[in-house]
Amino acid sequence: MVQEEEKQILEKITPTEEERRLVYGIAEEVRRRVEEELRALGVEAEVRVEGSVAKDTWLRGDADIDIFSLLPPETPKEFLKTRFLDAARKATKGYRQVERWAEHPYLECTLDGIRLNIVPCYKTRPGKWISATDRTPYHTEYVLKRLNEGLKAEIRLLKAFMKGIGCYGAEIRIGGFSGYLCELLTLNYGGFRQTLEEASEWRPPILIDIEGYYEGHPEDALELFQHPIIVVDPVDEARNAASAVKPKRLWEFVSAARQYLKKPSQRFFFPREKPVPKPEQVRKKLLARGTSHIALAFRPPKAPPDILWGQLFKAEQAVCRFLKRKEYRVLRSACWSDEEKQAVLVYELESRRLPAIKRHVGPPVWMTQHSQQFLEKYLGNKEVATGPVIEEDRWVVYLKTGRTDAKNVLKRTIGKEKMGIPKAILESMKKTLKIHADEEICILCENAEFSRFLNEFLVGRPSWLEHNNTSSKT
Amino acid sequence: MVQEEEKQILEKITPTEEERRLVYGIAEEVRRRVEEELRALGVEAEVRVEGSVAKDTWLRGDADIDIFSLLPPETPKEFLKTRFLDAARKATKGYRQVERWAEHPYLECTLDGIRLNIVPCYKTRPGKWISATDRTPYHTEYVLKRLNEGLKAEIRLLKAFMKGIGCYGAEIRIGGFSGYLCELLTLNYGGFRQTLEEASEWRPPILIDIEGYYEGHPEDALELFQHPIIVVDPVDEARNAASAVKPKRLWEFVSAARQYLKKPSQRFFFPREKPVPKPEQVRKKLLARGTSHIALAFRPPKAPPDILWGQLFKAEQAVCRFLKRKEYRVLRSACWSDEEKQAVLVYELESRRLPAIKRHVGPPVWMTQHSQQFLEKYLGNKEVATGPVIEEDRWVVYLKTGRTDAKNVLKRTIGKEKMGIPKAILESMKKTLKIHADEEICILCENAEFSRFLNEFLVGRPSWLEHNNTSSKT
Repeated sequence: MVQEEEKQILEKITPTEEERRLVYGIAEEVRRRVEEELRALGVEAEVRVEGSVAKDTWLRGDADIDIFSLLPPETPKEFLKTRFLDAARKATKGYRQVERWAEHPYLECTLDGIRLNIVPCYKTRPGKWISATDRTPYHTEYVLKRLNEGLKAEIRLLKAFMKGIGCYGAEIRIGGFSGYLCELLTLNYGGFRQTLEEASEWRPPILIDIEGYYEGHPEDALELFQHPIIVVDPVDEARNAASAVKPKRLWEFVSAARQYLKKPSQRFFFPREKPVPKPEQVRKKLLARGTSHIALAFRPPKAPPDILWGQLFKAEQAVCRFLKRKEYRVLRSACWSDEEKQAVLVYELESRRLPAIKRHVGPPVWMTQHSQQFLEKYLGNKEVATGPVIEEDRWVVYLKTGRTDAKNVLKRTIGKEKMGIPKAILESMKKTLKIHADEEICILCENAEFSRFLNEFLVGRPSWLEHNNTSSKT
Repeated sequence: MVQEEEKQILEKITPTEEERRLVYGIAEEVRRRVEEELRALGVEAEVRVEGSVAKDTWLRGDADIDIFSLLPPETPKEFLKTRFLDAARKATKGYRQVERWAEHPYLECTLDGIRLNIVPCYKTRPGKWISATDRTPYHTEYVLKRLNEGLKAEIRLLKAFMKGIGCYGAEIRIGGFSGYLCELLTLNYGGFRQTLEEASEWRPPILIDIEGYYEGHPEDALELFQHPIIVVDPVDEARNAASAVKPKRLWEFVSAARQYLKKPSQRFFFPREKPVPKPEQVRKKLLARGTSHIALAFRPPKAPPDILWGQLFKAEQAVCRFLKRKEYRVLRSACWSDEEKQAVLVYELESRRLPAIKRHVGPPVWMTQHSQQFLEKYLGNKEVATGPVIEEDRWVVYLKTGRTDAKNVLKRTIGKEKMGIPKAILESMKKTLKIHADEEICILCENAEFSRFLNEFLVGRPSWLEHNNTSSKT
């Protein structure tokens, strides 16, 4: 029956013959055109299809065609930014083209829902990497050599599972498992089920070293890669293929794996899309909690997604630290963006207002100068409710806070005080920031995606986590 | 001028000739009578006047006549509890007599405002101590040998200073400097002023070793005595004569010493007695703070003061820990008692009510069994506001608290749940506990002493700490 269930899933996630023909057709056509354009420039490049299309491991309707141009090592970096991009543009005339940068520029094109990446890299030997993308051809080669039809299906199941539980993708926004990582795990453990079974029992430190580079001295790998999960890249012993995986995603995968094994369900692969909660529903939910919420809404700076999300997360943390430094009790925070018009940082606080009195710890009495300064500052000071008083060996005062509202504190501080918000975000905030507190947040819920996000933030529970699935009696 | 000021103080604290005659008369008379009574019992005891009367270092109006009976080492402990006390009672006929215990029993007598302690001890050689009081004759001898009229005045100044700033006395309630300790400090530093000057610069670790027992290996003393200040007892290298000093009192003395040296004033020796605040004033003060106060009032158990205060402090801490465990934010706490009819533990909380939602951290996901139990407990649980959700590598839930009132929590828990309150206190509480919150506390302020205590608790600032005294420009 379980096998049956996974067969049903495979039927939904394996590309149809039609899709296959289309994808391979486009891939080969664009590959050839890029080759020609480069040849016209007098460049000797090997142009190849890489990634999941080359390996036939992509998920139905989710093809991402990677066309790699393996340039001679002596090619100047400047060439990649200028003439290579021109050639790529010519080769994909008619596509919607967006220039992107990872470590170096590449071209992303879209046509009829199919995505193409035209990527330059250097033709190097392992270990002699010039740019970060140079490993990709070796990745393709490594996986292809070990693949068969059965394993392709297993890989697709694992990718679709990761996708369904929200753990798929190495991009900063997700911080999850890349396609290549899913392939390595499947190869290593022998299949989808086996990967879930093994993952169910993962405990730190997690070290997977398929090629045995660190056999006999795993401590070197643990020392080198300070990440929650280490999967030594078979084509580069100095690289952790799982370095992008955030602890949260790692453990969500582990927990989902356990739940699935206990009671398999299509739900893990195809979560029910929940209806968009109406602003009025959100309002009720917010008020019922009895806590306070603050939302910082602004227009996100223009930047590639990985850059933008990196900055958004940094900004989220910076404001969180600021609020805590000001003695607000932050319960949780999160951020959301459509990557274009709107970005929102959300904070749940025990209360928008400070407690009426706060304890302020001063120097130990034996620090004469500091004690003197502390006394000069606080003796006769109108903000003092109690003290200065000695507790153990230190001076302490209890200060009246005036119950300051976090919304006002943020309003008058952001843009004026350095609090560690990345510069691009701060500039955007200066021009477009709106701060909403409690019910005021509902206005943002007119954006359906934000509304969905906020609702998920409040619920917290992953969609695959259901009550009837935890009982150990199944 | 400063010398002049201290002379004025000496005039107030040195016993008059009349007091001296009276005290010495009583001391010699009672000493002789105790000697006779013991002789009548066939006991060969040397009966001597000890303590501040023997050394002529007591403060005017504050005599405490210690009559020590040095018994032969072979005397059975039983004798001390029975026949010795009988003899002491006979010798002090006409006095108000109260039996007291330190390590062993002794008799405290009062007549016309003069206190007498009839104390048994063993006549032993240093280091061969049988009971804790055996050192006293050696303390007297040690100090007497080194004393002169000038030093007596210096000692009286230091004692009066300690008394004025609330740091005098080794009893648990105070946790301050004993008379003997004041004498040792004065002998060590050469005078009152010198002691204040040296104390001004004390920094941890503070080690005073007059006889140089630990010369060349002070680390042994630091290892042996884990106290904030160590004054090695000149008659017993294994005893810290300052072991009773609590950090708070130590550093209050240090700070007061600095303030006094900067601007000497009689205020340090003779603090102004403040008028008793009226319940209505206290009420206003409490409400103005915007925080919550909880007072636990009960009849204290009958016990010698040191035992009682030890238990009160323990109870205060135990309830404080309990409240914190229940997630209340305790700002400060204190306790008060008249040692007879009423004892009160006071707590200032940010709020009597819990924040609406609290974060509850569960096990790391890799602890499979614990995670399973956590999920079973919280999935579908009505108290959950958010979660279970994975944060980093752990399960977390956010729980609705119902904003429980600390007063109610204490009411229904004390006596039912073990929270570390000493047994005698707990028994008293079970019978007599009344819990007052916020304004309700004012009813307790009908007791003037409590009212004064509560007011000082709210003010916090020591009476000797005044604004105009901190400026470094004096």
